[in-house]
Amino acid sequence: MTRYALTVEYDGRPFMGWQRQDHGPSVQQAIETAVERMTGEAAVVHAAGRTDAGVHALAMRAHVELERDVTPFRLMEGLNALLRPDPVAILAAEIVPDDWHARFSCIGRAYEYRIVNRRAPLTWEAGLAWRVPTLLDAGAMHQAAQILVGRHDFTTFRSAHCQSESPVKTLDRLDVAGAGDRLTIFAEARSFLHHQVRSMVGCLALVGQAKWSADDLAAALEARDRAALGFNAPPDGLYFVEARYS
Amino acid sequence: MTRYALTVEYDGRPFMGWQRQDHGPSVQQAIETAVERMTGEAAVVHAAGRTDAGVHALAMRAHVELERDVTPFRLMEGLNALLRPDPVAILAAEIVPDDWHARFSCIGRAYEYRIVNRRAPLTWEAGLAWRVPTLLDAGAMHQAAQILVGRHDFTTFRSAHCQSESPVKTLDRLDVAGAGDRLTIFAEARSFLHHQVRSMVGCLALVGQAKWSADDLAAALEARDRAALGFNAPPDGLYFVEARYS
Repeated sequence: MTRYALTVEYDGRPFMGWQRQDHGPSVQQAIETAVERMTGEAAVVHAAGRTDAGVHALAMRAHVELERDVTPFRLMEGLNALLRPDPVAILAAEIVPDDWHARFSCIGRAYEYRIVNRRAPLTWEAGLAWRVPTLLDAGAMHQAAQILVGRHDFTTFRSAHCQSESPVKTLDRLDVAGAGDRLTIFAEARSFLHHQVRSMVGCLALVGQAKWSADDLAAALEARDRAALGFNAPPDGLYFVEARYS
Repeated sequence: MTRYALTVEYDGRPFMGWQRQDHGPSVQQAIETAVERMTGEAAVVHAAGRTDAGVHALAMRAHVELERDVTPFRLMEGLNALLRPDPVAILAAEIVPDDWHARFSCIGRAYEYRIVNRRAPLTWEAGLAWRVPTLLDAGAMHQAAQILVGRHDFTTFRSAHCQSESPVKTLDRLDVAGAGDRLTIFAEARSFLHHQVRSMVGCLALVGQAKWSADDLAAALEARDRAALGFNAPPDGLYFVEARYS
């Protein structure tokens, strides 16, 4: 058996999310189907993170173990040919040790959240960014975001469906950068709770619109209560951008 | 009568181009239909440039003259509501003097051309960029591009359907910038010939792949012959980004 690590880009719009579902298409299913068509093997593809419906990835990492011996380049090219017309692309493939696991070996994950701050509807970016029609103060958002950085109980920012054992996570980075009517929020941690990035972004947008003060954000974190959440941002603007391994 | 200038963003993918056509949807028709539904007036919408099928705009400028008196803000909001679900958005509207003409008053036009330089197919960028699978040397492309800057007979880079009176144009800027596997080409001139940007980009890509030398590009320009064109890049990566007025 040979274990291959894959770097995967996808457009989340047509999918129910990464994970295989009974009720609709998933990225995992798209790749597993391509693997089976190429090799005849019904292998499971494991990812560093299981993104939700409508969430995108610029560089998801995944792995698959195959009996058939194939060069990483051939695997990448073959899968890309078979993935069409699904908006999923294998950007890179490499052979990894048998104990390398896309999810369990991952020591850091990074997301990017894209906001377009304008009244007019989105055109080519529809489903690829969150349009916020009222003016956002990126500086105030960045400053407030620092409250969330560090080790905290993130229960407020956690979905009811979260399967994580503990709500305590260490957030390593939460930066808000703006240029013109584009804002990008960068989030990094060893791991995130379900909906954590979208929930943090939703509350930062309230701060950016001066509907919340930085103190309101601190109080929401302190509350450790999902009911204290101000707003959960839509999946449209969320991109999984990096998985780190030692 | 009141004349309104509009700033328009659109995704070119579903359209036959800016200009109204008998055989398919156009951006002009989409906006004119919205204007008529809002005001009852069958007004013509004039643009700074008539982009081809599949070409996008981040900030096309256009104008329309209406009998009905409406504030620019109301016009923008009303048109955006009526343009749905077409991927066309009015980013701004303002009242302009009666002799202001989106096309004839325009003294400068700028385009951006986006390339993704990788083997893997595009996902969320499909139709929004040109994928070039072989490695491009952005530095060599930028250097060669400077051959085209200035006043030249651009017959080689002109489509057979070009309606311009003269093939002589002054190209003010042609810059190639690269970061990672993304290249962007910036082109500015008072006006361009039909297919000029795509033709220049296509030939620069040949230089970037070392299939052409800078001398080959100079020879193609000198030839003043469409048959000397190396390659016409697809519309996917082309964005109209700015129209300037005095």
